[in-house]
Amino acid sequence: MNHLSKQYKQVRKFTEDICAPLEKEDYVVQPIAEVSPPKWHLGHTAWFFETFVLKPYLPGYREFDPQYNFVFNSYYETVGARVVRTDRGNLSRPSVDDVYSYRNHVDQGMARLLEEDQLDPAVAELIVLGLNHEQQHQELLYADIKYILGHNPLLPAYQAELEPEPLLNAKSGLLSIKGGVYEVGFEGEGFCFDNELGRHKVYLDNFKISGELVTNAEYLQFVEGGGYQDFRFWHAEGWDWVKAKGVSAPLYWHFVDGGWTHYTLAGLKELRAKEPVCHVSFYEASAFAAWKGMRLPCESEWEVAAARFEWGHRWEWTNSAYLPYPGFRRAAGAVGEYNGKFMVNQMVLRGASVATPEGHSRQTYRNFFHAPHQWQFTGFRLAE
Amino acid sequence: MNHLSKQYKQVRKFTEDICAPLEKEDYVVQPIAEVSPPKWHLGHTAWFFETFVLKPYLPGYREFDPQYNFVFNSYYETVGARVVRTDRGNLSRPSVDDVYSYRNHVDQGMARLLEEDQLDPAVAELIVLGLNHEQQHQELLYADIKYILGHNPLLPAYQAELEPEPLLNAKSGLLSIKGGVYEVGFEGEGFCFDNELGRHKVYLDNFKISGELVTNAEYLQFVEGGGYQDFRFWHAEGWDWVKAKGVSAPLYWHFVDGGWTHYTLAGLKELRAKEPVCHVSFYEASAFAAWKGMRLPCESEWEVAAARFEWGHRWEWTNSAYLPYPGFRRAAGAVGEYNGKFMVNQMVLRGASVATPEGHSRQTYRNFFHAPHQWQFTGFRLAE
Amino acid sequence: MNHLSKQYKQVRKFTEDICAPLEKEDYVVQPIAEVSPPKWHLGHTAWFFETFVLKPYLPGYREFDPQYNFVFNSYYETVGARVVRTDRGNLSRPSVDDVYSYRNHVDQGMARLLEEDQLDPAVAELIVLGLNHEQQHQELLYADIKYILGHNPLLPAYQAELEPEPLLNAKSGLLSIKGGVYEVGFEGEGFCFDNELGRHKVYLDNFKISGELVTNAEYLQFVEGGGYQDFRFWHAEGWDWVKAKGVSAPLYWHFVDGGWTHYTLAGLKELRAKEPVCHVSFYEASAFAAWKGMRLPCESEWEVAAARFEWGHRWEWTNSAYLPYPGFRRAAGAVGEYNGKFMVNQMVLRGASVATPEGHSRQTYRNFFHAPHQWQFTGFRLAE
Amino acid sequence: MNHLSKQYKQVRKFTEDICAPLEKEDYVVQPIAEVSPPKWHLGHTAWFFETFVLKPYLPGYREFDPQYNFVFNSYYETVGARVVRTDRGNLSRPSVDDVYSYRNHVDQGMARLLEEDQLDPAVAELIVLGLNHEQQHQELLYADIKYILGHNPLLPAYQAELEPEPLLNAKSGLLSIKGGVYEVGFEGEGFCFDNELGRHKVYLDNFKISGELVTNAEYLQFVEGGGYQDFRFWHAEGWDWVKAKGVSAPLYWHFVDGGWTHYTLAGLKELRAKEPVCHVSFYEASAFAAWKGMRLPCESEWEVAAARFEWGHRWEWTNSAYLPYPGFRRAAGAVGEYNGKFMVNQMVLRGASVATPEGHSRQTYRNFFHAPHQWQFTGFRLAE
Repeated sequence: MNHLSKQYKQVRKFTEDICAPLEKEDYVVQPIAEVSPPKWHLGHTAWFFETFVLKPYLPGYREFDPQYNFVFNSYYETVGARVVRTDRGNLSRPSVDDVYSYRNHVDQGMARLLEEDQLDPAVAELIVLGLNHEQQHQELLYADIKYILGHNPLLPAYQAELEPEPLLNAKSGLLSIKGGVYEVGFEGEGFCFDNELGRHKVYLDNFKISGELVTNAEYLQFVEGGGYQDFRFWHAEGWDWVKAKGVSAPLYWHFVDGGWTHYTLAGLKELRAKEPVCHVSFYEASAFAAWKGMRLPCESEWEVAAARFEWGHRWEWTNSAYLPYPGFRRAAGAVGEYNGKFMVNQMVLRGASVATPEGHSRQTYRNFFHAPHQWQFTGFRLAE
Repeated sequence: MNHLSKQYKQVRKFTEDICAPLEKEDYVVQPIAEVSPPKWHLGHTAWFFETFVLKPYLPGYREFDPQYNFVFNSYYETVGARVVRTDRGNLSRPSVDDVYSYRNHVDQGMARLLEEDQLDPAVAELIVLGLNHEQQHQELLYADIKYILGHNPLLPAYQAELEPEPLLNAKSGLLSIKGGVYEVGFEGEGFCFDNELGRHKVYLDNFKISGELVTNAEYLQFVEGGGYQDFRFWHAEGWDWVKAKGVSAPLYWHFVDGGWTHYTLAGLKELRAKEPVCHVSFYEASAFAAWKGMRLPCESEWEVAAARFEWGHRWEWTNSAYLPYPGFRRAAGAVGEYNGKFMVNQMVLRGASVATPEGHSRQTYRNFFHAPHQWQFTGFRLAE
Repeated sequence: MNHLSKQYKQVRKFTEDICAPLEKEDYVVQPIAEVSPPKWHLGHTAWFFETFVLKPYLPGYREFDPQYNFVFNSYYETVGARVVRTDRGNLSRPSVDDVYSYRNHVDQGMARLLEEDQLDPAVAELIVLGLNHEQQHQELLYADIKYILGHNPLLPAYQAELEPEPLLNAKSGLLSIKGGVYEVGFEGEGFCFDNELGRHKVYLDNFKISGELVTNAEYLQFVEGGGYQDFRFWHAEGWDWVKAKGVSAPLYWHFVDGGWTHYTLAGLKELRAKEPVCHVSFYEASAFAAWKGMRLPCESEWEVAAARFEWGHRWEWTNSAYLPYPGFRRAAGAVGEYNGKFMVNQMVLRGASVATPEGHSRQTYRNFFHAPHQWQFTGFRLAE
Repeated sequence: MNHLSKQYKQVRKFTEDICAPLEKEDYVVQPIAEVSPPKWHLGHTAWFFETFVLKPYLPGYREFDPQYNFVFNSYYETVGARVVRTDRGNLSRPSVDDVYSYRNHVDQGMARLLEEDQLDPAVAELIVLGLNHEQQHQELLYADIKYILGHNPLLPAYQAELEPEPLLNAKSGLLSIKGGVYEVGFEGEGFCFDNELGRHKVYLDNFKISGELVTNAEYLQFVEGGGYQDFRFWHAEGWDWVKAKGVSAPLYWHFVDGGWTHYTLAGLKELRAKEPVCHVSFYEASAFAAWKGMRLPCESEWEVAAARFEWGHRWEWTNSAYLPYPGFRRAAGAVGEYNGKFMVNQMVLRGASVATPEGHSRQTYRNFFHAPHQWQFTGFRLAE
């Protein structure tokens, strides 16, 4: 079995492993627009291979069901009509069993294609893109499952025996980085997304960046010190968000019987002081930084400094808006819709999180979310 | 086994029979606020017996799960906090299996209570209320299941082998009823809802009422004759509704390949001319009547005439607003919330429909829905 | 000068008298959809005469400005496109001066028409309808002006020297009316609206009705006795309204420095115990009645009893939905849109209020508003 | 009269000159949340001087009306409660005359303060900030007046004799700028806003930038070439905006009798091919660039190149998000709310427009609006 074929199987299996602890009912619901039903993720990642790989490149491939394009297309305008995002939770069919059959059907097609001696490199590239795409959905699956179960009044655990989150070692302090012209962006072998491409120069002033993420203990001081009641630390729209939603702590924090707990994938647990804070919005990260008299790093500062600190526990908010690198060009065809069309009104996150599949991220990786989003495993570090 | 015990078992079993053809995923979704997930109906009807019968009247009864009150309370403010109606579709738990266990637990408690030699008549009365309540939810189950499957892009059938809808026999024409003082409202033995009580006199002018429901063929003339494009036939808010929702035919009608079809519980079928029209709102019924130069009957006209025609195929819209009868009084306690609190801004429907459990309705029965609702099995007859 | 001509001048002048104390800026704003800018009322009532009388019946009449149809048409679908109701407050033009010129232009046309020796009776009837229509807008002008000024943070008075509201004489108690067949609806000479027509029989049971309106003192007991915190007195949608809007007292009531005041057209005043309560919604009237263990009268009870009590201080909520009388028929043409199209989801009010022009109302008059509306001069009396 | 005093009088007078052609009614309305009523601008700019200059620094100053703080505070959370932005158009009072009296009262206080021999430099700085603030509102006044009159169905002109917009001279072509480290940001004497501060280095790659703005003729090709019907040119949220709002041309463009016209402050005029296109959103500018196979410049490219082209006709959209410069710090106190709190989810515009007061802008000036906004005098130039 060749390397790509092995990788394909591993990635595809891991998606199903993530879903294994779920009840069938958990696959179906969509409590907010951002959260997709797990069965939609399962179907959509299969649809990606069917649409972009099997239908154009596997001779004799029989489409599983022509209506699935409508059900499992996420946002690709090029490939036709689709269920609008907010309606995904209204669909009881295709059933979970049908979706697994669909995945199986696609996997069989892919196996035939991957057996070929001379796989066209362009096709291989599309498959690698599909696997990275599926890994992104694995990350989303964790976040979405946590939201679905963590907003159920019964607060069921996803897996009771899950390992605890990482503890931080608050020793490292601020790292000083000297100003000057640096290069950022992806270069070299291996896969990267189009939004990382275009290795290019940036000028950075001298700056300092924390060697550690902000912890629950530090964030709790902000919460208990009135940070959510003082508009001076907040962006105007962040302050509107706090008031409109009644936000007073990170998502999943609950003050129960005189103590702080948080909902985790293992159920409701006591908050641990030395864990990195998680499930904060950009507004919250930014307000905390203002309260500290510091700021969030911009994405090129983060990238330049990243070799000198440990990362991978939380997606880290930066103060950079998600914009194209110099020389960015959309790829031709539907795949060109992958990243570029989202380059307005979102903020860049760097690093990776406990929900990121091993090997999926890298120092140049650019993730992006809207400023109010809290449902991802987001944290932050400070700069000045 | 006494009569009530037998009746209890029959009614409860029938609810589960209705759900038997469903996939687990179908139990969970809530595409619009009016439609509840089938598993919610199953749980709520069990909760009714647990809350109003078992907890107060069965010594030693052990509540199945104290959190279920929050999940399955529909609108009873007296019995505490509850999931708001629009959020029911976000709940993947309790699972379908858990809900059936809940029903089983309640049924065991009820069996113990029903075995008692001397069942307190007040308790027996509550049980009868609970069974009639459950029958109302059986009717809702049919309508909600139809909505869930009929709005899925795959248009799956609920039961492929369902019998066709009734055909009308368009022979009877208009019945003439002489004016004068009549009595309406429930009187006599047997169960009725509080909103039917207070047998009382009304004065009616001479009127004529159709012996038959309006058919698909008749309604199609209105559709194809431009009825949905001419504001003159519509109430002002009905016209706003037509324009805002883009309504141009009854719910579930689809013009496919040059012919009219409609989604039924047996799947997509050709429209049959002689079936009574179904799934029309009050606005539509009223506009059709205006187009015909006729009107809808008021509820007392309907009740006075009902002995002279066949009814039971469609819930029939009347032109009466849902208001209390003279002498109406709310019962004490939570059960008093049953009907009276809804007596504003809804219209009365009379009769019964193909989704009504046998023996549930009667000539004095008053059902009520909001004017724009189409998802029930609603039709109408004309008067003048 | 003939009678109709004199009446025309009086009614038209009175509309302008109502507006005389306003600043130009007050003519323009529309704080909520129900409230129209005073200049819109001025223009719309002129438009009514121009559209339905002058253009069809005055030879050689020159339309003031063809675009005014778009600006001042309220809801008549028959006579073309129009500014949607919620956008009226966005229109700074036509200016107030232009609108007065428009009125003047229409008045000159009407003077020519009214001079004619042989005015066609059908035209005379339309003119009388136009005058009654204008009187309805006079009433609305008072309510809308009060809303505009009473929601301005500076709480300016409309006329500082306005006379106080009527005081009630709480002596009369409950009047007993014997059951039987009664006749209701308009009959005889003089003007009435189409919704009053069709004198017809109704059967009423024995009932009692209060000889007086509910007073501020009585209503204050409900407010201070927790009436707004106890769901048991409220319709379900009334309770939702209380919670969503945070309602805790009638509109314009303010608790200031330890005492109850209310905004009046003469400015902020102390609440007087013996005044009839005003600016309550149907929900509030109905909840108060439930708290008292009584009910609101239905409209035919009110009409039958009205000869025996004083009325005219408040529009009085009844528990009757606004529905057509037996035999109601819409008039042909645009004028037929006057009343019938609103006969769904509104409640009937009977009587008249301090804002009603003298001679405008009568015992058979049927006004109607939506259940949550408070901005009219609405009160109520009780029945049982 | 000293220089500052003279400048104060000029700026203040110019605000009132802008309003001189208005009818009183035009001062009051607020058709959309972004547009403020002209009388609000007049009052708010006076309030700024009263609140930040006169009350703290003029001994014996008597506040005009303590309630005006509530009415005319725009967004300064530090200085208390305020009318929410969307409600400004509901306020008929204070009247226009009152607002001019308020301005007069403030001007008298300012005259006394400005007469002082030794004006504290910190106070002088605040006054200069206040004047620049007032100039920003002058620009807004033009845009808001245009919106108010240009959305009135009568399409009245603001000033019929206004000079035509500038014509472009399409000769200059693309300017080539060599890559390297450049310095951007304000430096030197004179006023600037806090968001321009922190002269700092940036690294730019080689780039080309157009010497001219995009013209109506060029933009028309995009409109007529189907640019608004092809999702490939648009950001995902831009495409949603086009569909939700039904946008098919820049704001104020109307296709009338077979030809393109646009509403201008002088009324409806034929579109002139060589004028720079105006009233386009960031989405539109960006889609046009994509259609051309080019892009928008980023703000540092624009600043570096600006010495080499003419600017000042349109505010120019850049592809830079509005973010703090390195070293940005909010000023202490309420004035610190001026800019920093808006640094999320807005795009930077550079240059100035026909509505910009002379001398107000400069090469380092950073304006910012939300991506969908069209009501400012916005255009753009291309880069590659």
